[in-house]
Amino acid sequence: MDRTPGTTADHPAPAAHPRRKCPRLLPLCAELRQYDRTTLLQDLLAGTITAILLVPQALAYALLAGLPAEVGLYASIIPPIVYALFGTSRTLAVGPVAVAAVMVATALSPYAGGDPGAYVTGALILAALTGVILLGLGLLRLGWLTAFISHPVLSGFTTGAAIFIIGTQLAALTGIPLPRDADFAQSIAVLIAHLAAANPATSAFGLTAVVVLALARGHLPRALSALGIAPQKGAILSRMAPLVLVAIAIAVATQTAAAQRWGVATVGTVPGGLPRLQLDFLQAKGWLDLLPAAALIALIGYVESISVAKALAFRRREKIDPDQELRALGLANVAAACAGAMPVAGGFSRSMVNFDAGARTQIAAIVTASWVALATLAFTGLLADLPKAVLAAIIVVAVWQLVDFANLRHTWTYDRGDGAAQAATLVGVLAFGIERGLTIGVALALVLFLYRTSRPHIAVVGRIPGTEHFRNIHRHLVETWPRLLLVRIDENLYFANTPRVESELQNLVVDRDQLTDVVLILSGVAYIDASALEMLENFASGLAAAGIRLHLAEVKGPVLDRLRDSALSAGLGADRIHISTQLAVNRLVGAT
Amino acid sequence: MDRTPGTTADHPAPAAHPRRKCPRLLPLCAELRQYDRTTLLQDLLAGTITAILLVPQALAYALLAGLPAEVGLYASIIPPIVYALFGTSRTLAVGPVAVAAVMVATALSPYAGGDPGAYVTGALILAALTGVILLGLGLLRLGWLTAFISHPVLSGFTTGAAIFIIGTQLAALTGIPLPRDADFAQSIAVLIAHLAAANPATSAFGLTAVVVLALARGHLPRALSALGIAPQKGAILSRMAPLVLVAIAIAVATQTAAAQRWGVATVGTVPGGLPRLQLDFLQAKGWLDLLPAAALIALIGYVESISVAKALAFRRREKIDPDQELRALGLANVAAACAGAMPVAGGFSRSMVNFDAGARTQIAAIVTASWVALATLAFTGLLADLPKAVLAAIIVVAVWQLVDFANLRHTWTYDRGDGAAQAATLVGVLAFGIERGLTIGVALALVLFLYRTSRPHIAVVGRIPGTEHFRNIHRHLVETWPRLLLVRIDENLYFANTPRVESELQNLVVDRDQLTDVVLILSGVAYIDASALEMLENFASGLAAAGIRLHLAEVKGPVLDRLRDSALSAGLGADRIHISTQLAVNRLVGAT
Repeated sequence: MDRTPGTTADHPAPAAHPRRKCPRLLPLCAELRQYDRTTLLQDLLAGTITAILLVPQALAYALLAGLPAEVGLYASIIPPIVYALFGTSRTLAVGPVAVAAVMVATALSPYAGGDPGAYVTGALILAALTGVILLGLGLLRLGWLTAFISHPVLSGFTTGAAIFIIGTQLAALTGIPLPRDADFAQSIAVLIAHLAAANPATSAFGLTAVVVLALARGHLPRALSALGIAPQKGAILSRMAPLVLVAIAIAVATQTAAAQRWGVATVGTVPGGLPRLQLDFLQAKGWLDLLPAAALIALIGYVESISVAKALAFRRREKIDPDQELRALGLANVAAACAGAMPVAGGFSRSMVNFDAGARTQIAAIVTASWVALATLAFTGLLADLPKAVLAAIIVVAVWQLVDFANLRHTWTYDRGDGAAQAATLVGVLAFGIERGLTIGVALALVLFLYRTSRPHIAVVGRIPGTEHFRNIHRHLVETWPRLLLVRIDENLYFANTPRVESELQNLVVDRDQLTDVVLILSGVAYIDASALEMLENFASGLAAAGIRLHLAEVKGPVLDRLRDSALSAGLGADRIHISTQLAVNRLVGAT
Repeated sequence: MDRTPGTTADHPAPAAHPRRKCPRLLPLCAELRQYDRTTLLQDLLAGTITAILLVPQALAYALLAGLPAEVGLYASIIPPIVYALFGTSRTLAVGPVAVAAVMVATALSPYAGGDPGAYVTGALILAALTGVILLGLGLLRLGWLTAFISHPVLSGFTTGAAIFIIGTQLAALTGIPLPRDADFAQSIAVLIAHLAAANPATSAFGLTAVVVLALARGHLPRALSALGIAPQKGAILSRMAPLVLVAIAIAVATQTAAAQRWGVATVGTVPGGLPRLQLDFLQAKGWLDLLPAAALIALIGYVESISVAKALAFRRREKIDPDQELRALGLANVAAACAGAMPVAGGFSRSMVNFDAGARTQIAAIVTASWVALATLAFTGLLADLPKAVLAAIIVVAVWQLVDFANLRHTWTYDRGDGAAQAATLVGVLAFGIERGLTIGVALALVLFLYRTSRPHIAVVGRIPGTEHFRNIHRHLVETWPRLLLVRIDENLYFANTPRVESELQNLVVDRDQLTDVVLILSGVAYIDASALEMLENFASGLAAAGIRLHLAEVKGPVLDRLRDSALSAGLGADRIHISTQLAVNRLVGAT
């Protein structure tokens, strides 16, 4: 999108408007300083459009998590409002999301053991734990821990989870009963074995809905545009497809009495009324059992949210505070638990819709939440006859967008290690389940990273004649001197690469008979950890034992500051630490 | 030591002596090419001196592992010979070592549950597993995995293990009975509570031996030198102290019938004769239970061995092949298992003694092993009356050298993170035991490393007027241009620092209103992983949406090669990738 003249005005520097001080922890307050009628109208429109998308998704994701429909609606009312108060993103749409929903289902199947009451309680515990973990990370400023999840691992995980989710929804789409805690392979096997047991009416609802939604997503905007409707209006209209589909499905199911006549599974009675404060879950057992699952939900939810929030904010040149995001999402999840709702996060597609629809501030999110509250108050009675197969279709079409094999190929082409981690995560999720797949991917990415840095680039360099430039002797025609070894190390020195650097340096020395001086060029070294320092000290004393002097050149300021008190620096003395390679060479072989 | 003219001759380039080809996997063969009478005499002397040190240590470390004395002797015969054939170090003394011995004891207490037969079988299984793990790592060239253990963690572990070992030996030194699987705190508590139960005769043997050995180590060489004995001879004589002490202790204990009269615990009958091939352990159960302990023994044993081997080899300008070392130590451990012995590794102090005594090749190790074999054949009958307290004293004095708190202070001064990892490992070993302590240290070092690299140094730079040098705007008086942002990134870009780099770059852009061009200076970036590439692509498209162009400057060759096919590179085009910052500035604001 283009940079509009209005954008910069959206980004007030609070110091420039010192009317009243806004608490730093309430970013919405600062946003409202510049709020006016135009902005309000934009927020009203965007919030309404997002609500149209959210209501069917809220019902669907509750179904995906194995929870009653109202739990999804509750998660779309209080938590987004809490986030709106504390979050630093102006357009992030917080609420139930597909990946967190399926992680809830995975965690609760063994926990609840088939007891629906325990299942709902477990969801509230998960939301509370997720909130406390995020809040704790935010307060302790430990957001960097979430950087353990690399993009390829996240991408592999998302694709794997999406396929996994589609697998779980095939049962609801077709009416074939499936064991609740079946993994992906089991789901597919059961479906194929019991294909004949499919409920024809359920399948009709489900597959029709999938086709309609897929067409609406792919072709409706274009068709509307062909009918002379402006592209922006067309986009808004096509986003109404799920809600219209739900309405039509309810009408058809009610008219045909599909539930009674053909045994089509429907949503059933959804209690009306707003969420109420519920703290009974605090007395429930099993918090410790659910902790690992909550940690992964927190991690994935945060990483997804922050990446969307950053991308959208940057498009309008706004700032995101990652630690405040942790706290805001943490509070939103604690609020979810207290309001009887499932864990929440910032949804990718809903946030995009909200942004594209023109949301300027979190007032849009409050508008969305108000619409959901209204629906919960007034229209839940209508939902009883809604076939679950239609909700399953909404899930399948929504998560189908997350399946991205092109990215896997792309990553593999760019970097074999990252590609392997991505593929392992994807396969791991499908073969061993959501949590173990993610753990496998994170561990593999870490090991591969260490492998990569364990073999740093070490170049023996010489001088390009007539210049002060020093280059790799294997790539350039350069001057060298038999009694002088110039080695450039192109990586920070730390424990994982210390053994190899030590071996390589030793071998370089052993291979040269006439050496009197070795110069290590540290222009590419931003730090040296204690392991590497010890190695360098040993290297220096090993050289000294052989009558060879060690020199350092082009040491960066921070590295030099820290080396100052070390035995290495004391052993070398100031006259063997050279500002530039050229000066070192001049001193050692005479100026040219 | 000085570089002697003979040293280079010790290091034959096989290609220069093409008499017969030596198999690459048998380094000893190449060593023998240049073998002569002088070298043989040197090896004979060094091997004999090392044997004098080794025999008492072999008995002591078997006791430390909770195994019969002969198991220590067996570990000093066949395994060093196998290592001598395959190892690339000429002076590494392989055999039983203190830290591996205590790890064997820790692993076997729960495994054997008090059954001495199962205990010995367990030791053989541990040796076999250790060997297979090392061999596997060597064949798959996975030696870099051992780099996970940083120097500070290894140092903290060694000090912790040494204190732990001293704690376990206090019982044998004093005759106070101690539960076998007591941890450090329990050992100390039991000792203090039962001080009155100490056996006076045992304590007399033990404490006298400790004092004599400590004095011999500290003062004997000086005293001998005062008596007019040449320093080198004095050093050799003082190394005989443990063996002399053992002989005197046996004589005193036999003469006074200490075992019968005062209940002094003695070594008891040690079966004579050479080790025989024993493969019964292959049928035993519990291999999987012992696997984690074997992995840690393999890891620690290898890391210790390779660091000693490298240090000693480099002093004589010889090369060590880390992968071949893995295979050689692996084969030595497999041989240990087949010969009824405990796991082995390269010992630090014994290797130093061997080197200082003038060992030139692994023939010295074969000489040492021959002496031990002779002792096992002829003199085991004499050992029955040796008080165990004397062996405990040998252990205590040997491991006392490993306690190094000065290094902890040193590390802490240099780097808080490394110091914390070292302290955590030390405390972890004492509080939670050998294995868990090590695991805690390795995990903490890894997390701290990620923390460190998660916040790379990013500098906004400007030009020092009249030069082509670009420096940090906060440290130097430099030229800047309002429409141009020059940012230098001083670290490789990978998943753990990608989120922070993204945030910082976005914030730098958001803070500048008149920007038209952003130049990323990548002189300090040796690679960009897939996460960082995706971030840069998103950053570029975010900038483009705001009408700002992204440029790269000083991209290293390997990075540029890999970027070539990426969307980033395609989006920028060749004219936005600049060779130097100066050229980029000239193009963007005009040449000066």
